[in-house]
Amino acid sequence: MKKINPTLPKGTRDYGPIEMKKREYLFSIFKNTFSLYGFNPLETPSIENMDVLNGKYGEEGDKLIFSILDSGDFIKNVDQIEKKDSNKLKREISKKGLRYDLTVPFARYVSMNRDKITLPFKRYQIQKVWRADRPQRGRFREFYQCDVDYIGTQSILCESEIIELVYAIFDKIQIKNISIKVNNRKILYGISEVLNFEESFDKCCILIDKIDKIGKEKFNNELEKIQFSKKQIDGLNSVLFFEGSNKEKLIFLKNFLSKSNKGLEGLRSIEKLMKLSKKFDFDVSLARGLSYYTSSIFEVVIKDEKIGSLCGGGRYDDLTEIFGYKNISGIGISFGIERIYQIMNEEGLFPKNIINSKTILVSCLSEEFMTNSLKLASKLRENNIKTDLYPDNPKLKKQLQYANNNSIPYVVIIGEDEVKSNLFTLKNMVSGKQEKLSLEEIISEISS
Amino acid sequence: MKKINPTLPKGTRDYGPIEMKKREYLFSIFKNTFSLYGFNPLETPSIENMDVLNGKYGEEGDKLIFSILDSGDFIKNVDQIEKKDSNKLKREISKKGLRYDLTVPFARYVSMNRDKITLPFKRYQIQKVWRADRPQRGRFREFYQCDVDYIGTQSILCESEIIELVYAIFDKIQIKNISIKVNNRKILYGISEVLNFEESFDKCCILIDKIDKIGKEKFNNELEKIQFSKKQIDGLNSVLFFEGSNKEKLIFLKNFLSKSNKGLEGLRSIEKLMKLSKKFDFDVSLARGLSYYTSSIFEVVIKDEKIGSLCGGGRYDDLTEIFGYKNISGIGISFGIERIYQIMNEEGLFPKNIINSKTILVSCLSEEFMTNSLKLASKLRENNIKTDLYPDNPKLKKQLQYANNNSIPYVVIIGEDEVKSNLFTLKNMVSGKQEKLSLEEIISEISS
Repeated sequence: MKKINPTLPKGTRDYGPIEMKKREYLFSIFKNTFSLYGFNPLETPSIENMDVLNGKYGEEGDKLIFSILDSGDFIKNVDQIEKKDSNKLKREISKKGLRYDLTVPFARYVSMNRDKITLPFKRYQIQKVWRADRPQRGRFREFYQCDVDYIGTQSILCESEIIELVYAIFDKIQIKNISIKVNNRKILYGISEVLNFEESFDKCCILIDKIDKIGKEKFNNELEKIQFSKKQIDGLNSVLFFEGSNKEKLIFLKNFLSKSNKGLEGLRSIEKLMKLSKKFDFDVSLARGLSYYTSSIFEVVIKDEKIGSLCGGGRYDDLTEIFGYKNISGIGISFGIERIYQIMNEEGLFPKNIINSKTILVSCLSEEFMTNSLKLASKLRENNIKTDLYPDNPKLKKQLQYANNNSIPYVVIIGEDEVKSNLFTLKNMVSGKQEKLSLEEIISEISS
Repeated sequence: MKKINPTLPKGTRDYGPIEMKKREYLFSIFKNTFSLYGFNPLETPSIENMDVLNGKYGEEGDKLIFSILDSGDFIKNVDQIEKKDSNKLKREISKKGLRYDLTVPFARYVSMNRDKITLPFKRYQIQKVWRADRPQRGRFREFYQCDVDYIGTQSILCESEIIELVYAIFDKIQIKNISIKVNNRKILYGISEVLNFEESFDKCCILIDKIDKIGKEKFNNELEKIQFSKKQIDGLNSVLFFEGSNKEKLIFLKNFLSKSNKGLEGLRSIEKLMKLSKKFDFDVSLARGLSYYTSSIFEVVIKDEKIGSLCGGGRYDDLTEIFGYKNISGIGISFGIERIYQIMNEEGLFPKNIINSKTILVSCLSEEFMTNSLKLASKLRENNIKTDLYPDNPKLKKQLQYANNNSIPYVVIIGEDEVKSNLFTLKNMVSGKQEKLSLEEIISEISS
């Protein structure tokens, strides 16, 4: 037999038992909280047709989509392959790709099912996405995303509810000191109108999005490079870096944007939101990278820590239009579940008892007592106690080692004495304490 | 903007909210029961290297693996593409593929992590697999599999525990009248030794596996076609279709196989299992399609129904050997979770209360009461009541329709009267009953 070296593709990971239990704990907090807020679950296929995926993530994003080779004799009908143009060839031999995010498949789902669903439609989705990115520390090619979205409503209540939801989740996972930054794309556009750089609006948003990384000075240098005048740069600085309370910012901007209808519209939305919620920081320098946001945008960070954002989202007015479903406004937030997992792991925020607490190992010292250990295991399980059964009969030491390696806190030992007396030795693997107990006593000891 | 018709790739499905809730209910029964039996969760990546996947599923299986196109300029270094041989080209431009089952990735995981894991190692895995099969009614290209396996033990206790586990699960999902058929590949091999057809053993197993589909007569015709003599066919019929209790079969076979050591070895394993469990049907005509099984094999069917098997599994002694990890015996069972889902759906076995029971919709009749509805929703959620909030203020009828379409059983209505009196109108959507209640009364009504 030809041997194969077992390896994983770059940027992918196995999740072993301990990591899985932590992930399931975390995912269940998300799912339960989303349910509590009236969001329903949705799953879409990992595979989407290429024309659904292509052109949605910008030029760079499109390159990172994993393509699936057509089945069968895919090359048969391809002309001119001798030209060796990978991009052209790809379009001919690959009609499907792996999901790149959860938002585009959601827009595809809503558009496809417009006759079946009731608007407003609220869904959450926790699934993997794939990106052919260069793998780095903390950046993978296959990872989970976790999104909630409303679609079919323009109400500012959604913004307010999302803020509540974010606090509810971070409260439960005990990541403290978060700040929810909120801005509105229309305010940014209004600023571009007032300062006369509407044509460079998109470019400027990309730069604003980078301020945290590159710093103020470099930001201003970059503006110069794209032909911003000194006056424009000063004006932009005065508004982006204006310091004050939400209310003070509002007053300042009402004046600043007085000549821009669009800007004032964005400001009214922030003002409405202030009436419903006190739990956000109005941050004019928040821009968000994705181009499909048209109104409210938000980001969640940990105060005074430079680890980047943990969640991001916003309102989009035209996402389903490409699929022929017009005038449907949506709003959503994506929780950076992989980064949140990492922080919780590093800071020890996972409760210890999610790993095998209240689990018992039934160990067996001789093959002749197999029936006894099976019966005991069966009784324990009937009482809803997680019960592992050591299937072989090596020395007790090895069986205890197995319990230790699997973090199993209790071992019950069955040998000749135990079978005769119907009293079993229960060993507490944490305290080392060992005592002879009846089945009923074992059940009450572990259940307590 | 170029419009795109939103479609799904052939053989893939979206799972909408109601289907998701049923699936989550079903999956949680599996997960909880697996935990109760000491199995731990594992997840492997959807993407595996091609050399891990290729050659494991037979020639036909290999063709059904979805290949992922290499990133970047994949065609640059390919020679002689003008020959247009899709199979050769595929090997050069695709080094990765989508998971085809959960067993091979599990064997890869165990082999890769042999220094970290403690044997015996028990895991369950519920994940999607992909097969480029021709889609048919009930057969998809992307679907869930649900496997449990032991690895690193030869104990017959595993077989016994798996039988218990199967009953525990089918009991919880209320699919009744199941039968667990058990056989041993060594018995089949022993029969081939006694009747002198060892060389046609694999072919004969494939035919035996088809008896249920093709019938006895066709089976015997097919045997003739592969040169079985009348004596061999009669001999095979006498043993495969021998009718009697497990014990009677055992006695008959002890005699029949008396000259085959391997056959007797298989029989001893069945005999041991009979001492531990009464809950299976010894079925000599059970063969299983997969070639990697070496000893015990089993299948779960519904008695007197021709819907095929719901679970299948067996013991394999060499699966990790290809990855350089020798002499590691494993045993596992795969639950046909998609078929089980289908049966439960058709027979109405999903409890009705998994869809939005105890959910309330806060409906709001005017924008000016938004703060009130937000506050009420927040109080309800604090009391762990799933609360949806209608974000806009259309006529009440439309909001009630929304509740109906989403199977939400309670609606609380906030209007001018309610805000003034602090008593809210609670409408039971099932009975139609409507009453004015305080917040505390609403909470106790819904929680009860």
